[in-house]
Amino acid sequence: MKMVQHTSLNDILHPRSVALVGISSRPEEFTHMYLKGLIDFPFKGPIYPVNPKVTQIRDLQAYPSVMDIPGPVDYVFSLLPARLTPPLVEECVAKEVNVLAMFTSGFREKDEAGAAMEAEIVRIARKGGMRILGPNCLGLYCPAVGLGLRSDFPREVGNVAFISQSGGNATDVIMMGKHLGIRFSKVISYGNASDLSESDFLEYLTEDPETEIIAAYIEGVKDGARFFRALTEAAAVKPVVVLKGGCSEGGNRAATAHTGVLAASEVVWDVALKQSGVIRVYSLEELVDVILALKLVVHSGPNLAIFSIGGGSAVQAADECERAGLVVPLLPTQIQQKLEEFTPDVGTSVRNPVDGAWLTPDGIEKAFKILSECPDINIIVPIIRVDMLLGISGVALAEGLSQAMIAASKLTSKPVVFVLRASNSIEAQQAAIVMKDHCLEANIPVYTSVSSAARALSNVVRHHQRRAAVVM
Amino acid sequence: MKMVQHTSLNDILHPRSVALVGISSRPEEFTHMYLKGLIDFPFKGPIYPVNPKVTQIRDLQAYPSVMDIPGPVDYVFSLLPARLTPPLVEECVAKEVNVLAMFTSGFREKDEAGAAMEAEIVRIARKGGMRILGPNCLGLYCPAVGLGLRSDFPREVGNVAFISQSGGNATDVIMMGKHLGIRFSKVISYGNASDLSESDFLEYLTEDPETEIIAAYIEGVKDGARFFRALTEAAAVKPVVVLKGGCSEGGNRAATAHTGVLAASEVVWDVALKQSGVIRVYSLEELVDVILALKLVVHSGPNLAIFSIGGGSAVQAADECERAGLVVPLLPTQIQQKLEEFTPDVGTSVRNPVDGAWLTPDGIEKAFKILSECPDINIIVPIIRVDMLLGISGVALAEGLSQAMIAASKLTSKPVVFVLRASNSIEAQQAAIVMKDHCLEANIPVYTSVSSAARALSNVVRHHQRRAAVVM
Repeated sequence: MKMVQHTSLNDILHPRSVALVGISSRPEEFTHMYLKGLIDFPFKGPIYPVNPKVTQIRDLQAYPSVMDIPGPVDYVFSLLPARLTPPLVEECVAKEVNVLAMFTSGFREKDEAGAAMEAEIVRIARKGGMRILGPNCLGLYCPAVGLGLRSDFPREVGNVAFISQSGGNATDVIMMGKHLGIRFSKVISYGNASDLSESDFLEYLTEDPETEIIAAYIEGVKDGARFFRALTEAAAVKPVVVLKGGCSEGGNRAATAHTGVLAASEVVWDVALKQSGVIRVYSLEELVDVILALKLVVHSGPNLAIFSIGGGSAVQAADECERAGLVVPLLPTQIQQKLEEFTPDVGTSVRNPVDGAWLTPDGIEKAFKILSECPDINIIVPIIRVDMLLGISGVALAEGLSQAMIAASKLTSKPVVFVLRASNSIEAQQAAIVMKDHCLEANIPVYTSVSSAARALSNVVRHHQRRAAVVM
Repeated sequence: MKMVQHTSLNDILHPRSVALVGISSRPEEFTHMYLKGLIDFPFKGPIYPVNPKVTQIRDLQAYPSVMDIPGPVDYVFSLLPARLTPPLVEECVAKEVNVLAMFTSGFREKDEAGAAMEAEIVRIARKGGMRILGPNCLGLYCPAVGLGLRSDFPREVGNVAFISQSGGNATDVIMMGKHLGIRFSKVISYGNASDLSESDFLEYLTEDPETEIIAAYIEGVKDGARFFRALTEAAAVKPVVVLKGGCSEGGNRAATAHTGVLAASEVVWDVALKQSGVIRVYSLEELVDVILALKLVVHSGPNLAIFSIGGGSAVQAADECERAGLVVPLLPTQIQQKLEEFTPDVGTSVRNPVDGAWLTPDGIEKAFKILSECPDINIIVPIIRVDMLLGISGVALAEGLSQAMIAASKLTSKPVVFVLRASNSIEAQQAAIVMKDHCLEANIPVYTSVSSAARALSNVVRHHQRRAAVVM
């Protein structure tokens, strides 16, 4: 057995070989999703299925146990039931595995016997110099080494790290982010945090050159002082977005059943998160919305020029943005005059919100250029009503208009953030998704409602203002 | 000329003949959308295009003026520019038209000259016993008489009335509602409210047997006392949902440019709306969400049983619902015991939120039945993560599971409200829309996020509690 010394977290997060223990021989079993993810990505090193009943699974040689695998094994992902776990930990230690990640639940979150078993496996692992991820987690998604978890996760490496106490929430954020152009350096689902914990990851990610934005879903922590220190240090270096799960009575009950965390007062969390300088969000959707804005809106000013099609839409947009803490200022007279030169004088407004209902693509380009010259404006927000455009003259007009706006966006020096409002119909959603993809190709963030855009921008603008205040 | 006496609002809202004035001869012109809407629906009476330059438009005989139309004309929709409007009003009065609705803008919202012209046309109309709708509006959508406005609006008559000072917002609400099974008795876009106003409509809709739910988008009112009285009387009889536009500085500036309303303090509005007993909402999306809940959730209790797939999803759902003022109570021990009989004992929870990750369709049915027997629970909220299901085994599983939940919903005596969370991809949206349509066919309201469901349910539960308190 090797000397008791811990492998660096960087090596743990970039394994060169993987074993899946407890993988069924039946490919229709849902856990095969994880094996298929590794094969399809593909994972850059050897993949070893472990199952004592068969010799082959999905064209790969299967091994009766971890000990029977010929080469070294860096990363073991176990799907075994809890009761079979202690011997597996012994075996992995003997095999000099770097880290054992456990999908398995039925530990601390279940009952006292489960908690005792969890303590026991951690004791064995620590003694043997191995780390444990989970139990009750999905483990790692690290596209740089092809550790893919699921076939439908993005292959590309990005600059966002997400640590999540919930595997389901990790999956949801990856999938929501996938379709908004968000790519990850690594996603770590860490479940019960029996050994490796949020603080380990935060300390690592603070230094990680591959990570520019850190996001976290956290239900509870064991060492509050260390966590608060790690969080504050991370937030001093990179934007950190935190979703705290289990803030309500019902949510806390669910968190205890989920990852066995202890209740901590919402007041304590609220103060700690505020003081640490992170961006706190309240839903997975908001988490993804904020990451998107952080990725693309590098700016510190709250002043929006809203560009709408229709007066009622303009009124609503201004209300929702100002309610979120942003500002929709009256445009200076000389800017209004420039806009008036080519804006029809009825059924429009050039004061801000700019209601450009009757503008041609050429007019949109001129308007964006003029707005981008205005020092009172920080961000330009065009709002597209997809169903209205489809109703007037179909997909061509809708896409033509959004293309004109995207082209105009490229000519401005200010960030542009699109809102694409669409009804819940297949036609409108399809058209909206095509327009969204065009925007994302042009590095323009897209939101599906004014309120989600306003909330995300408000969070990011406040973040940049806070950072500017600290630096000064 | 007939005696100066006003036609009843009911007759005004159910015209038997329609003229479109200022309709272009070119079918590609966007205003043709409104003529096409009437033809396609079809409108149940004669449609008269008015254009002095041609004799035929879209297979219909065109007339040089309103006076040249052979039969009576109940409803005139005008697209003429503002400066041509006074003579048109004279003509319509002479023709004994019931109501002239004006798309035309460039009146009070533009400048003093526009305000003077608006006052002048109202004077002419009142003297002649004719009503004016608008200007600066889309007029009426009344499916009962085939007054369709747009070809893509629903043909079916419903029980929701929507009055909107913005034509764009009227269109958006109709289209958003269309795909959520919301149908309208009538939608009235009334723009500048130069003559017929929100108070006229509220008084009418309070008595209207075709209308069970009233919704309103209002930027400003001229007679605050009458409006407050009308609103309070309406809210005493039917649920009334109000979105006030122009609450912020930027929004108010936009509202003044849009329909020429005067600024009124947000504080005054807030107090008035609270006292009148309406449900106040803050976006068009929320307006539609609340209508959907009002339509299908006839209940007064705030206690939810959340049925999730995955622990992290359960935690988030409980947090978001309790933050919105709902309650996710611990289930009574005997209910938990009944659920435990068929729920796997790891990776699940039966305490509430119920995490039924490993339940079969049969198990879902049993669980819903048991929850529906629990007197502590008012509403059952299943949460489906569409991408997760698609990732595990494709569309078939996703739809099978939602079908099982819908079938189970039909067996319970309690309202069931679905949340279908899906990423912004074509595959996930398509699958979600299919599931949504299945739910709506079963009269189950569907939301796309927990936060939107929670906000809508909280509003509706508080509304029912308020009503119960008034009745007692």
